[in-house]
Amino acid sequence: MSTSTTTTATSAPEPWQNIAQRKQAQRASLIPEAWRIPEAKLREYTASPTANVLHVPSDCGILSSLDRQITESYDAIDLLALLAKGPDAGGFTSVEVVTAFCKRAAIAQQVTNCVTEILFESAIARAEELDRQRAANPSAALPPLWGLPISLKDCFKVPGVDASIAMIHFAEKPSTEYSALPQLLLSLGAVFHCKTNVPQTMMTADSDSNVFGRTMNPNNRALTAGGSSGGEGALVAMRGSILGVGSDIAGSIRIPSHCNGTYGFKPSANIVPYAGQANPAADGLAGILPVAGPLATSFRSCRYFMQLVMSSQPWKYDMDCLHIPWLGLKPPAGRNLRIGVINDDGLFTPTPPQKRTLEEAKAKLKAAGVELVDVQLPNLMEDVAVAWACFGMEASRTALGYLAAAGEPKIKSVENIGLTGGTGMTIEDLFAWNVARSKVEAKHRDLWVSSNVDAYINLLVPHTAPRIDTWTTVVQALWNLIDYPSCIIPTGKVSEVDVVDPNGAKFGDADRALYEQYTGPEDFKGAPTSIQVIGLRQEDENLSIVAEMIDKILNP
Amino acid sequence: MSTSTTTTATSAPEPWQNIAQRKQAQRASLIPEAWRIPEAKLREYTASPTANVLHVPSDCGILSSLDRQITESYDAIDLLALLAKGPDAGGFTSVEVVTAFCKRAAIAQQVTNCVTEILFESAIARAEELDRQRAANPSAALPPLWGLPISLKDCFKVPGVDASIAMIHFAEKPSTEYSALPQLLLSLGAVFHCKTNVPQTMMTADSDSNVFGRTMNPNNRALTAGGSSGGEGALVAMRGSILGVGSDIAGSIRIPSHCNGTYGFKPSANIVPYAGQANPAADGLAGILPVAGPLATSFRSCRYFMQLVMSSQPWKYDMDCLHIPWLGLKPPAGRNLRIGVINDDGLFTPTPPQKRTLEEAKAKLKAAGVELVDVQLPNLMEDVAVAWACFGMEASRTALGYLAAAGEPKIKSVENIGLTGGTGMTIEDLFAWNVARSKVEAKHRDLWVSSNVDAYINLLVPHTAPRIDTWTTVVQALWNLIDYPSCIIPTGKVSEVDVVDPNGAKFGDADRALYEQYTGPEDFKGAPTSIQVIGLRQEDENLSIVAEMIDKILNP
Repeated sequence: MSTSTTTTATSAPEPWQNIAQRKQAQRASLIPEAWRIPEAKLREYTASPTANVLHVPSDCGILSSLDRQITESYDAIDLLALLAKGPDAGGFTSVEVVTAFCKRAAIAQQVTNCVTEILFESAIARAEELDRQRAANPSAALPPLWGLPISLKDCFKVPGVDASIAMIHFAEKPSTEYSALPQLLLSLGAVFHCKTNVPQTMMTADSDSNVFGRTMNPNNRALTAGGSSGGEGALVAMRGSILGVGSDIAGSIRIPSHCNGTYGFKPSANIVPYAGQANPAADGLAGILPVAGPLATSFRSCRYFMQLVMSSQPWKYDMDCLHIPWLGLKPPAGRNLRIGVINDDGLFTPTPPQKRTLEEAKAKLKAAGVELVDVQLPNLMEDVAVAWACFGMEASRTALGYLAAAGEPKIKSVENIGLTGGTGMTIEDLFAWNVARSKVEAKHRDLWVSSNVDAYINLLVPHTAPRIDTWTTVVQALWNLIDYPSCIIPTGKVSEVDVVDPNGAKFGDADRALYEQYTGPEDFKGAPTSIQVIGLRQEDENLSIVAEMIDKILNP
Repeated sequence: MSTSTTTTATSAPEPWQNIAQRKQAQRASLIPEAWRIPEAKLREYTASPTANVLHVPSDCGILSSLDRQITESYDAIDLLALLAKGPDAGGFTSVEVVTAFCKRAAIAQQVTNCVTEILFESAIARAEELDRQRAANPSAALPPLWGLPISLKDCFKVPGVDASIAMIHFAEKPSTEYSALPQLLLSLGAVFHCKTNVPQTMMTADSDSNVFGRTMNPNNRALTAGGSSGGEGALVAMRGSILGVGSDIAGSIRIPSHCNGTYGFKPSANIVPYAGQANPAADGLAGILPVAGPLATSFRSCRYFMQLVMSSQPWKYDMDCLHIPWLGLKPPAGRNLRIGVINDDGLFTPTPPQKRTLEEAKAKLKAAGVELVDVQLPNLMEDVAVAWACFGMEASRTALGYLAAAGEPKIKSVENIGLTGGTGMTIEDLFAWNVARSKVEAKHRDLWVSSNVDAYINLLVPHTAPRIDTWTTVVQALWNLIDYPSCIIPTGKVSEVDVVDPNGAKFGDADRALYEQYTGPEDFKGAPTSIQVIGLRQEDENLSIVAEMIDKILNP
């Protein structure tokens, strides 16, 4: 017979440093020896404070020429075509493609710290299985994402590995099932090769944590890689993944896309399955809805992702998904595009590189026959205040509780962001907030209808990727508040011509303070520029078509 | 110069009886003398406690033969075709049609007390204007609802008249603008001829109030006309309107449709504009969303209403409307319908007339080749508790505040309904409630997917219209909780064969108590029976097609 024992003392949590050390050591151990960059070389690549490491995968000698061809020559759509062809017809096996991206992701990880969970072994095993199945049944139709490696932001659950979302509390608690979106993507034939880094609490634009450390911007190590999908942004910029999935409640797909120079698409709420993710906030929280969406190396890959998801009855995976079908719309025929241009947001002056890129984009669009009309945002300050109030709905109590339970300190950007004070909302406050949001939505619906445009373009934010731990901009959350889909099209990099304009800031002190953070092309060299394209709520398909037309004009 | 004065005493509100008396007197004064039923005749029509007054419009001598033809021979779609034809081609003028329905609504009002605001004068004036415009420009295309009178539940705002929603507090405060849906319908050419009665607070199934009194069921005065769109149900049953608009958060379209014997369609949330209505609860309230939808004399009129609204970019009128287009789907071809039959809800036994009507419906469907599969609701009791908890979110504080401010007493059904006690929810309760609802939604999504059906059919409630002020059934709110569109198809009336079955109730005491309220065909003579057809969330178009096929089988 067994005797029962009673434990009366509550043991203190294990020191968070131990857990972090184990997590990082385990992660390092999952990179095969042959894929490791020698210490000396690594030091050399990252020696300059503003080092650009985008070249490292091609230069470090770890990738074969086939690996380089696979990871550098194609976007997701090209690669899917080559995977569908298969090796006998001049294409690739899934193992070839998946292995190449695993290797490149391993390299990206070593120079940017962008990965949280390494899934190389299971990814290659799945690729082998897919290749085997195809060999056994060569005439069977292949699902549309067959054999393609896809990376996932850490919050998406994959059985057997953590979805720790960079919080000690959730570390070493492997998931037991897939989140809704990975499940859908799996059913389409995708392979998951890694999960990617996020900020502690997922509430900041600096993907740093006690669990995994900080993701570095591969374009310039002095600048933030953005967040909260910062690992995804850095990984896709490094082409360690050509199609990844992030999430966005206040810019978390678009910020890293902008900072790292990738494409990114923030859908409207409940278009792409979001359910079943690790969650740093209270379950059932009301207010602005977070969304899942793609980051990719081409716009058309983002569009294709949206098409596949919206054509897959996504409500079967996440019953909150709207029953909005993909209609197979065509680009507007027999007329020119009409685009509303938001030249500035009325609060902050675009810094020289961002101002230049918007002017260049306008010139290219105009030259291509696009009709441009100026659009002025009506009192953005008020609207952003409404968005901000929502992010303080529970005064971050849930997230802070997880930090406290694990005994881990806040990272700097969590301290900076200012969402951890306050008292949160009562239910009456929430009702009043719903009314306030409705007013903003009505104002913007009227603006859209009266503008009579196919899309708006603007700058996501007035600046490029700022220095590490200095991001404070919230204007991009307007499009979350009113739930308009919006996407990032990279347009280039900071250039020598982007000299400081000492008297450029025109909206007062707060503007000047932000504007002056841009100290010239030398400090910000390599920083990507981009434009944001914005569509009407729930008209994601239409936005994907219009933005693809714009991308072809800007990046022919 | 002016001097400022300060009033320190707060004056008591005017006695509610005075306000009610003025409202009712004003309403009575708006019925032209020639349209009034003589007192003696009125007493005769309503003498029996179970009087059926459906025959009164044809019998009372007020309607001309043209009025009778217009109001009795057509549904909304027929009439729209005849309006479009115009008098020169064998159709009607708008004045002819609108006048006929104003007269019939006046008669309906006198025997059922179904109307709150009488708009006869402005309706006929608008009809004259429409006829004039057409005469001036005979070749101009007419909008799809051109010249058709439509009735509106009292909560919809029409400039110049109250939207008092049967509360003294809101009486004698005329609206200054249209609610979103009337505005959309106006743009399609509709004419509004009256607004219709609701219960005080709009929270009960008995359309009774201190302002307007009680709406009587025209089929049997002993039974409730239902609510909260009870006036609409009685008016449409009397054919004082062939197309009206109600609203539904827990059955408020479907209950009066069922009780009075009309068709009714409860859309999914945010398909039909709801914005801008008078609201007895807190603005910005969270939880189950109320919806607007049609009641009509034919199912195809409901379908057409849905088609018109969904084809009109309804988000331009109410920006909460989903961007779900009307797709122009066709009935399933090359296969039989597959319908899930919910024989009972697992809590309450259908009473004899309702049981009979479901069995007859199943037999007819089967004979028509429809494949029927049994579907069992998984633990409805739990789900209804979740819905019920939502209705207590603010413990009716807002509505009770309006009653207190006016010094008016609660009506009996408000006392009975049990939603005015309790403490309401905290914001954390609301988050937990959101999680609880998600679980119910997921369970039902799985049931739907595994059932693999075109629609479910069931009984809205296990009983016909019950006696006045006795309605307690909440099971119908399941479809609001999980946001499935559902509609009512009338199937007949209580028949002599619906004899009491003393041992019929099979689910215990609560079931027996409800079941035994049915005391046989004599007491419930004339009470309509119906079936409910239920579709998948946001697939309103599909439901409208499938339900129309079912209606053609049941009511050939």
